[in-house]
Amino acid sequence: MKTSLPRRVTAEFLGTLLLVATVVGSGIMAERLASGNVALALLANTIATGAALVALILTFGPISGAHLNPVISVADAVEGGLPWKETPAYIAAQLFGGICGTMLAHVMFSLPLVSLSHHIRSGPAQFASEFTATFGLLCVIWGCSRSRSSLVAFAVGSYITAAYWFTSSTSFANPAVTIARALSDTFAGIRPNDVPVFIAAQFVGGIAATLLFRWLIPNLSSSAQDVVLPHSHQGGG
Amino acid sequence: MKTSLPRRVTAEFLGTLLLVATVVGSGIMAERLASGNVALALLANTIATGAALVALILTFGPISGAHLNPVISVADAVEGGLPWKETPAYIAAQLFGGICGTMLAHVMFSLPLVSLSHHIRSGPAQFASEFTATFGLLCVIWGCSRSRSSLVAFAVGSYITAAYWFTSSTSFANPAVTIARALSDTFAGIRPNDVPVFIAAQFVGGIAATLLFRWLIPNLSSSAQDVVLPHSHQGGG
Amino acid sequence: MKTSLPRRVTAEFLGTLLLVATVVGSGIMAERLASGNVALALLANTIATGAALVALILTFGPISGAHLNPVISVADAVEGGLPWKETPAYIAAQLFGGICGTMLAHVMFSLPLVSLSHHIRSGPAQFASEFTATFGLLCVIWGCSRSRSSLVAFAVGSYITAAYWFTSSTSFANPAVTIARALSDTFAGIRPNDVPVFIAAQFVGGIAATLLFRWLIPNLSSSAQDVVLPHSHQGGG
Amino acid sequence: MKTSLPRRVTAEFLGTLLLVATVVGSGIMAERLASGNVALALLANTIATGAALVALILTFGPISGAHLNPVISVADAVEGGLPWKETPAYIAAQLFGGICGTMLAHVMFSLPLVSLSHHIRSGPAQFASEFTATFGLLCVIWGCSRSRSSLVAFAVGSYITAAYWFTSSTSFANPAVTIARALSDTFAGIRPNDVPVFIAAQFVGGIAATLLFRWLIPNLSSSAQDVVLPHSHQGGG
Repeated sequence: MKTSLPRRVTAEFLGTLLLVATVVGSGIMAERLASGNVALALLANTIATGAALVALILTFGPISGAHLNPVISVADAVEGGLPWKETPAYIAAQLFGGICGTMLAHVMFSLPLVSLSHHIRSGPAQFASEFTATFGLLCVIWGCSRSRSSLVAFAVGSYITAAYWFTSSTSFANPAVTIARALSDTFAGIRPNDVPVFIAAQFVGGIAATLLFRWLIPNLSSSAQDVVLPHSHQGGG
Repeated sequence: MKTSLPRRVTAEFLGTLLLVATVVGSGIMAERLASGNVALALLANTIATGAALVALILTFGPISGAHLNPVISVADAVEGGLPWKETPAYIAAQLFGGICGTMLAHVMFSLPLVSLSHHIRSGPAQFASEFTATFGLLCVIWGCSRSRSSLVAFAVGSYITAAYWFTSSTSFANPAVTIARALSDTFAGIRPNDVPVFIAAQFVGGIAATLLFRWLIPNLSSSAQDVVLPHSHQGGG
Repeated sequence: MKTSLPRRVTAEFLGTLLLVATVVGSGIMAERLASGNVALALLANTIATGAALVALILTFGPISGAHLNPVISVADAVEGGLPWKETPAYIAAQLFGGICGTMLAHVMFSLPLVSLSHHIRSGPAQFASEFTATFGLLCVIWGCSRSRSSLVAFAVGSYITAAYWFTSSTSFANPAVTIARALSDTFAGIRPNDVPVFIAAQFVGGIAATLLFRWLIPNLSSSAQDVVLPHSHQGGG
Repeated sequence: MKTSLPRRVTAEFLGTLLLVATVVGSGIMAERLASGNVALALLANTIATGAALVALILTFGPISGAHLNPVISVADAVEGGLPWKETPAYIAAQLFGGICGTMLAHVMFSLPLVSLSHHIRSGPAQFASEFTATFGLLCVIWGCSRSRSSLVAFAVGSYITAAYWFTSSTSFANPAVTIARALSDTFAGIRPNDVPVFIAAQFVGGIAATLLFRWLIPNLSSSAQDVVLPHSHQGGG
């Protein structure tokens, strides 16, 4: 028996909220403590984010699939997993959850609720980075989706841990997270002007990987019901 | 067949003792070696604590459930898992284990058995941090409890790894650990005056998450028997 | 039903591409941010590489086995797993994928597509390091191959994480990666002159481990079909 | 069918060799690169060691149990797992493997084969540290042994990762590793004079945990056959 839509949407909201609170909050903490050593700050930010993804996917995956990312929800809808009529609710919950996550991080660090970022992230290298980051993320999700196990949580957490470092953009790979990070003038921020190109690169990369895997794994759509984590049955895991 | 109460209480005592010894001891070691770089010290402290949680939950979970935390025991009692009449014994073991853990860490680093901390941790941002940290912890535990697998050990370890960085309080999220850390005037310490507010925030956050998940997962109470790790049957894991 | 050769070769190409993009890209990022602290740069490089291996083996393993390494493909052919007539296609895909991975990393960091490395890595200690690194890698693969589970992804990721530090060469352990790294005059590079000795040491170490495990595990060849990850059946994982 | 003794002893030899090569080698690498920052050096040393344990236990566990440690072999013999008449062969292989591991690390870093350490590690805090470290290690092993799964590799790797930091001795917790480290005048070394007290503390701590778990888990001895990893049956894992 599938979990009801309000419950699944709440899970997407909460999961994205906690994900963004981790990305933004750990960036603030890391920058405050690292006394100018950016590599050390990014390492702490990376470890916190990768670990949060493992925990959040294991937690919310059995309820809503733990997409936590509009690219994943759209790709899943393309493959026939998430019904198109439920997709807007998923995306709205992710966007709203992300923004609340930024605000929560700011509250926890005594900052104004919202502040527009001045962190410039533009140019072809950034586009290539976001395309690659999201292409790889969807490869991981589709590649692991057949195994129907909780291992996908570890695969995604590990992948993002790597992607923070192998891309020059530090791998946002998620439109909801990108918008939320535009509202934080801190370590993890992104200038609002640069957001549209990031989101475009993310959707192009994610759809490219989805089309490639449609060929690579002929019966791909049969596992689309269970992206990111199996959540059709109450038994879970 | 359920393990006898004295055995389960001993497991809670030992597990909390080793958890606090890790938190306090690794804080002392990290501060001594990091020559003033607080980000590096906190990173070592984080990695040690997250790893200890994985090991301790896998070790003591099959015996007592490895709550190691009064908020978890109370939340589990609320949901009908831990019998109310056994709850005081669990909490006493956790409190006593935590205090012994601080003392053991001090012995291992040639410090006086007990020393009251002067580390100020107060204000609304700290309250929000502890509320959020414990709210998230109980989300993780209830969210993973249905899968009945040892993955919850990795989920909790990963969650705390992230929470050390995304909260300004470094995420105590545990009243027994909070009290024990008040007795250590070292890196991980907390001024005794600040303890009550921390504990209040932890219980409020933990109960809020429990009530939310009661709605989010309708048959939640059926898995309350197996929090944090399944421990009803000798077979375990 | 086995996945068709073109699909498996594509998986080897993509997997090796993303692996090398991680090794080279995270090296560039780490060196740029670490302001001269080589230990910190190598730590970031290590964590990114180990995490990428976990994600990539879980992703591409169910399709092609996720060899991503000519030594593994040859060792598997020796044991009767990969058919000899398919081995050249696997190796070609790995070599080409590796080179494309270097170029992709350079694009993401606004560097020229290719640049010959000047990083000298020669002498007997380097030979001993590469022999040991690849010997250990094949021990891990053959030792875990009987368990037929996805745990091998974690075993390989963990092993390389350790090997980056316990060898003086930082453990290339992979001819395709070695050649690709010769084309990058960055942190992860290797002088082209030093490549042949590295590759020789890698094959000698890998074959030595394979012969040892043929004795150590009498029925080794029966699991050769499923190296690195089981991929014969559509069910995977 | 049980693997033959020569094969199991070879696995213990190889596993301990690679474990010590990791501990000593990564210590040399870390100290060379960390330019005096001991916390950073120890962090790299810790991550390499914890990761190596995961890989080595998964690799050699299905063959010999992957004790890699005389305290574990003796504790397992006490509980009726390892036959007493095979115990000396296990311990000899571990001791010899450890010494070869130190020599291999030295070869890989162009150092003399053997050099006596001058690193002083003495006093009651060190004794308490080694007692606690080995007590905790055996808790982890006995606590996880009933679950009969490969999770024990992750539990042990995680535990040692934590123990490097929560003890002032950095947690040797292994007589074979202790002796091997006495032969290396590098980061990981220990003055030969201090070895006997370390080994005594390790055996006392390990036996204490074993006796405690005999009470804590009434049917403990029935799982002694499968310490550290199940290895009685060819199927493994």
